[in-house]
Amino acid sequence: MNPLEMSKWLLPGLLAGLGGCGLIVELASERNLWQKNSRDFYEEAKRRVPPLGGIPLLILLIVIMFWARTFYMLPAILIGLVGTVDDFMKLGIKGINRPLKAREKIVLQLLIGVLGAYLWGRTSSIWEIGWVVIVFMAVVNATNMTDGIDSLLAMTSIVSVLFSMLLLPAYGAVFFMLVGFLIGFLWFNAHPADIFMGDTGAFTIGGILATIFLRSRQELYLLLIGIVFVVETLSVIIQVTYFRKTGKRVFLMSPLHHHFQKLGWSEPQIVFRFTFFQTLGGMTATVIAYVLAR
Amino acid sequence: MNPLEMSKWLLPGLLAGLGGCGLIVELASERNLWQKNSRDFYEEAKRRVPPLGGIPLLILLIVIMFWARTFYMLPAILIGLVGTVDDFMKLGIKGINRPLKAREKIVLQLLIGVLGAYLWGRTSSIWEIGWVVIVFMAVVNATNMTDGIDSLLAMTSIVSVLFSMLLLPAYGAVFFMLVGFLIGFLWFNAHPADIFMGDTGAFTIGGILATIFLRSRQELYLLLIGIVFVVETLSVIIQVTYFRKTGKRVFLMSPLHHHFQKLGWSEPQIVFRFTFFQTLGGMTATVIAYVLAR
Repeated sequence: MNPLEMSKWLLPGLLAGLGGCGLIVELASERNLWQKNSRDFYEEAKRRVPPLGGIPLLILLIVIMFWARTFYMLPAILIGLVGTVDDFMKLGIKGINRPLKAREKIVLQLLIGVLGAYLWGRTSSIWEIGWVVIVFMAVVNATNMTDGIDSLLAMTSIVSVLFSMLLLPAYGAVFFMLVGFLIGFLWFNAHPADIFMGDTGAFTIGGILATIFLRSRQELYLLLIGIVFVVETLSVIIQVTYFRKTGKRVFLMSPLHHHFQKLGWSEPQIVFRFTFFQTLGGMTATVIAYVLAR
Repeated sequence: MNPLEMSKWLLPGLLAGLGGCGLIVELASERNLWQKNSRDFYEEAKRRVPPLGGIPLLILLIVIMFWARTFYMLPAILIGLVGTVDDFMKLGIKGINRPLKAREKIVLQLLIGVLGAYLWGRTSSIWEIGWVVIVFMAVVNATNMTDGIDSLLAMTSIVSVLFSMLLLPAYGAVFFMLVGFLIGFLWFNAHPADIFMGDTGAFTIGGILATIFLRSRQELYLLLIGIVFVVETLSVIIQVTYFRKTGKRVFLMSPLHHHFQKLGWSEPQIVFRFTFFQTLGGMTATVIAYVLAR
């Protein structure tokens, strides 16, 4: 992709991130758009932050899908919309004030995963469909679990996407759009954040990565390209499983970023240190892919 | 550059950044290696931080110069060493406790710039030598002025270097090494920083960029690729000039990052917002270069 082509995708991303999130920050402070009935915050201070930063990304992705006819991207958009429903419910406007139940989310994710398997041509057997659904659900929940520290999911996603470009250059357009958006989003999400990307943002990012890697049949590389997402997920599984069996905890708190927060790492320290490992993972993935292709 | 080649430069950078800076952080707390006689800190809290984080970068660059016979890199190394002298003098060990005087630094920079003009084959006239010296001095002082907020110079440099790779892919090796080093360095330099890169780091980064762009005769692109460095420098020039003429200040404080700090922006906010502009500048530079080359 030449620089002119690159800027055609990077610039709209940058502007959507800066302009869209800036608008939401303005509206939020006028209209009290923050999470009034969420109990899952580590710090009280984070409650008065609007969780709607993913919406400009989702809108951009919808526009691109219709404009560039990239309908294989539909599952990423649908999962993003599931996040949006959840985010708006958390705001407690119009009397609707319960978030989606875990079961409802899982059923929706499963259905969207099945749709993905068809759109991406991965329906050779029931096993393949099942595998695609599992990977899709794992990825979108992994990015969602990573989102819990200011700038953490944005920075680790930028690194993932930059290495993904080396692996799957055909998807450069969406990748540059996403990097641009995240750099714009970080203007307002830098610690202390004025906006969160919410489930909308986290699910959409996971959805984009899952879509591109599953459609390219390269999904195993996500284990390395998104190593931070994988480890965050494992930390939750280990914590919950171990606690149910023994009544004791492995980590001070899960997902893993909260463990380090309790150990005294600042939010920027967690961000840059997790980003370091994401870089190692991305580098390893591209080296393996290159060596295997030789 | 293929991924295997890339990792050959990225990985040593990552390890030198993490290992080298980690070692310095350990040594510093044992031996009280911080700036005892520097008066130029905005915040008192930053005094007890060792300013030696650039040294692993400088050592890596020296090893590479001898190993890969890239002797055109000598000016970057020499200017880095000027920084090291300054950093060690600031530590106040062995009775030597004054930093280099401004005049001494300028004379050394000027001499190194002249050496650069010869090494980079830019000696067609006295005017060209003068131009090379001016650009070299401007760049190394610009990166040095930008270094004043935790992670600011590291993050803006990573973005500059990534766009520089698109412009001058022949220098991919040094670029990847530098990006790797900075990601490792950020492990300890994330706010609140346990280490600074010091004049050693800031001069070396400026020296590398100046060397590569001057040797390639593409130095004008540095105005865009390093737009944050340019604007930081201009803010100092404007502040000083205006103050001398009128006795009033244009900015609350210069360089520009301190102006925004006084306006209430947090250090991570300054870092990510300046990085946004560095991205715009880098994108513009690569687009211009591409369009001109068509």
